[in-house]
Amino acid sequence: MKCLTGQILDYADDPRRAGDSAIRHIEDGVIVIGDDGRIAWSGERSDLPANYATLETIDYGRKLILPGLIDAHLHFPQYRMLAAFGKDLLDWLNRYTFIEEQRYCDGEIAAAAARAFLDELLRNGITSCLAFSTIHPVALDCLFDEASRRNMAVASGKTLMDRNAPQGLLDTPQAAYDDSTALIAKWHGKGRLKYAISPRFAVTSTEAQLEATGTLVKENPGLLIQTHLSENPAEVEFVASQFPWSKDYTDVYDRYGLLTPSSLFAHGIHLSERELARLSEAQSAVVHCPTSNNFLGSGLFRLHHTTESDHPVNVGVGCDVAGGMSYSMFDTLRDAFTVSQLVGSRISAHEAFFRATLGNARLLGTDKEVGTLEAGKYADLVVLDPCATPLMAERHALSRDLHDVLFALMILGDDRAVAETWVAGDPVKPRS
Amino acid sequence: MKCLTGQILDYADDPRRAGDSAIRHIEDGVIVIGDDGRIAWSGERSDLPANYATLETIDYGRKLILPGLIDAHLHFPQYRMLAAFGKDLLDWLNRYTFIEEQRYCDGEIAAAAARAFLDELLRNGITSCLAFSTIHPVALDCLFDEASRRNMAVASGKTLMDRNAPQGLLDTPQAAYDDSTALIAKWHGKGRLKYAISPRFAVTSTEAQLEATGTLVKENPGLLIQTHLSENPAEVEFVASQFPWSKDYTDVYDRYGLLTPSSLFAHGIHLSERELARLSEAQSAVVHCPTSNNFLGSGLFRLHHTTESDHPVNVGVGCDVAGGMSYSMFDTLRDAFTVSQLVGSRISAHEAFFRATLGNARLLGTDKEVGTLEAGKYADLVVLDPCATPLMAERHALSRDLHDVLFALMILGDDRAVAETWVAGDPVKPRS
Repeated sequence: MKCLTGQILDYADDPRRAGDSAIRHIEDGVIVIGDDGRIAWSGERSDLPANYATLETIDYGRKLILPGLIDAHLHFPQYRMLAAFGKDLLDWLNRYTFIEEQRYCDGEIAAAAARAFLDELLRNGITSCLAFSTIHPVALDCLFDEASRRNMAVASGKTLMDRNAPQGLLDTPQAAYDDSTALIAKWHGKGRLKYAISPRFAVTSTEAQLEATGTLVKENPGLLIQTHLSENPAEVEFVASQFPWSKDYTDVYDRYGLLTPSSLFAHGIHLSERELARLSEAQSAVVHCPTSNNFLGSGLFRLHHTTESDHPVNVGVGCDVAGGMSYSMFDTLRDAFTVSQLVGSRISAHEAFFRATLGNARLLGTDKEVGTLEAGKYADLVVLDPCATPLMAERHALSRDLHDVLFALMILGDDRAVAETWVAGDPVKPRS
Repeated sequence: MKCLTGQILDYADDPRRAGDSAIRHIEDGVIVIGDDGRIAWSGERSDLPANYATLETIDYGRKLILPGLIDAHLHFPQYRMLAAFGKDLLDWLNRYTFIEEQRYCDGEIAAAAARAFLDELLRNGITSCLAFSTIHPVALDCLFDEASRRNMAVASGKTLMDRNAPQGLLDTPQAAYDDSTALIAKWHGKGRLKYAISPRFAVTSTEAQLEATGTLVKENPGLLIQTHLSENPAEVEFVASQFPWSKDYTDVYDRYGLLTPSSLFAHGIHLSERELARLSEAQSAVVHCPTSNNFLGSGLFRLHHTTESDHPVNVGVGCDVAGGMSYSMFDTLRDAFTVSQLVGSRISAHEAFFRATLGNARLLGTDKEVGTLEAGKYADLVVLDPCATPLMAERHALSRDLHDVLFALMILGDDRAVAETWVAGDPVKPRS
């Protein structure tokens, strides 16, 4: 067993909705980690049970210990291709992304990529994610193998796409069904892994493939579903032309039964009120990826309009590497803040960190296992240093309260502010 | 004398307007620095004159040597107050900024701040800037003292403001005139320093003070003038209510003779066509500060609309610490790129780096002294490492050409990618 001391912080619920009582902050806190990699006890140091008092202790001082950060949308095979000079989504896909992803038919390339990808996540304090892979079963095998070796809670699935991409990235409706079925049997529920049914987006799937995807959903109820929705105006138009019978983009997925309480739709920037109402009814979620939306000029997501309309829709956050510009959750939250400013309803740092922890855990269906520091959950943790650089230390001297400390972290922080990352009870941050 | 080798890159002109021939890139380049701190020679290694061949050499290998970066708008007394949780410009000024700036009546505080401020600039490869100070002459003395000690090309001036701020931050029309006149005599042209006449903005100056400012401009022709213009819709409205006789915000400054070829107006987001035409006619410039505009939700600046309308206006770039979120010019250029994407006319990496070097030098009237790597100019240099982090190294392996290398730097880089900063022939990057 191990014992960590420091400031500890987690959220019992969304502090924007539930108020400040949802914020659980203990200045002089202790986390006891059992040999099973789970949290055995957490709370005030003065309340520490006597039987834990003699444990070996790692003292993080004034640093903040939070639940490990969770990323609800990114692309494993794009792990190194950030900052590709695309004009917009479709140009970026065709000129850069679809070229890079074809390499993942090669198991050696995919295995090396999986190591680098998970290293980047851990370097940035991200202990869990929902990620896209490619169409190649071997790529998914490599990602899951490596995640399994690290005991990380990773959700992913083979990508389904059978049109509008280079031959090397296309499968068929039948292969989509067969490969997914085999991979679900092989990986879903193995250790901390979860399978996600993963049609790329309506642009790259025929109606026959979406039909097959719907069959997968019916045969595997409760499984995560991930795809993209309403990211870019040209994409929305293209989808309308491909599915002339559809009411709108959301309706395409709806027709094939893909709107479930376990469905996560990346982006959702240009949704109509009808689409929001339908997503709300289906209890599906949208994943906000602000650095990506800015980078590709996709548009400004209206977060509180989405979460607080007459038909509220759950919203997660994701870095969306490599449309996104950074693996850092700080960068993601910083841009979520600036976008919220630009659309006139700013998010607080507490709301931001809630979404990156328990909020995303709920959407990924892992909130019983991670997302807070409660006893019984996995000891997936991130230790944040608000004074990681000379500038951050200067700024920290000005901090007025906990919110201010967190806000400065998300605006100014990068991987240097992640002092340590813990996965299932072990410190694992790769050193640069 | 010293000799640096590496890839060298500068711009003879704006590559967007002048085309690729404005890009001067030498893969196997040499820069010879004389004992006067100026560039004695630069060019292809194969052309190196024989008399330089035996000089002591610092080999930067595949790293890129550029002219030192120049920041055309930021606030010295806000050096540590980044990431203040303001709702918008006026709220942010009143709740945070005007409190912090009052400390600068104290010379000890200002002297320590000047050291930290210039350290941050140099850590980020910024060798020259146009900065605001406070109303306190002592604060400006401290900044200029410290810049002088470092032989840095810094332009600044005492801030003029006589209303709509706490008492501790107000002067009077007479003090504005007297203090500025004395400080111009004391500092302007001393070493590499330049004085800039610095009314904060129309909100905080009475008509009498703007009148006195106009007198200063008349009495000191050619001096830089810096202020703020059309940053935020509420600010624009407030100015209209304070100056009911004005055609628009620009007209207020125009009335007092502040539109000159040496005038730099920060932001300029919400300018009308009339205002753009008038600024163009006066050959005044606007300074784009994208991280600040995003942080305060001020709006999306239309860069190419400004530079390429029927009445083109020159545009510089600035980090605008501390409305801005970072001292890094990479971050500034990254957000300039994303804003340009969101408004539908993207900037290239070459345009971005041109603006941050020769472009800004022209606006500051220092392009005969800095901004390129030509012989005779000061050896203000920045050495950039495209492989500074594990992720950047992975990304670099994908780079297709020079543009791609620069683009990845501005999207992914931070102060770690600044391998060294040279000021007037000396390496001066502070180590973290």
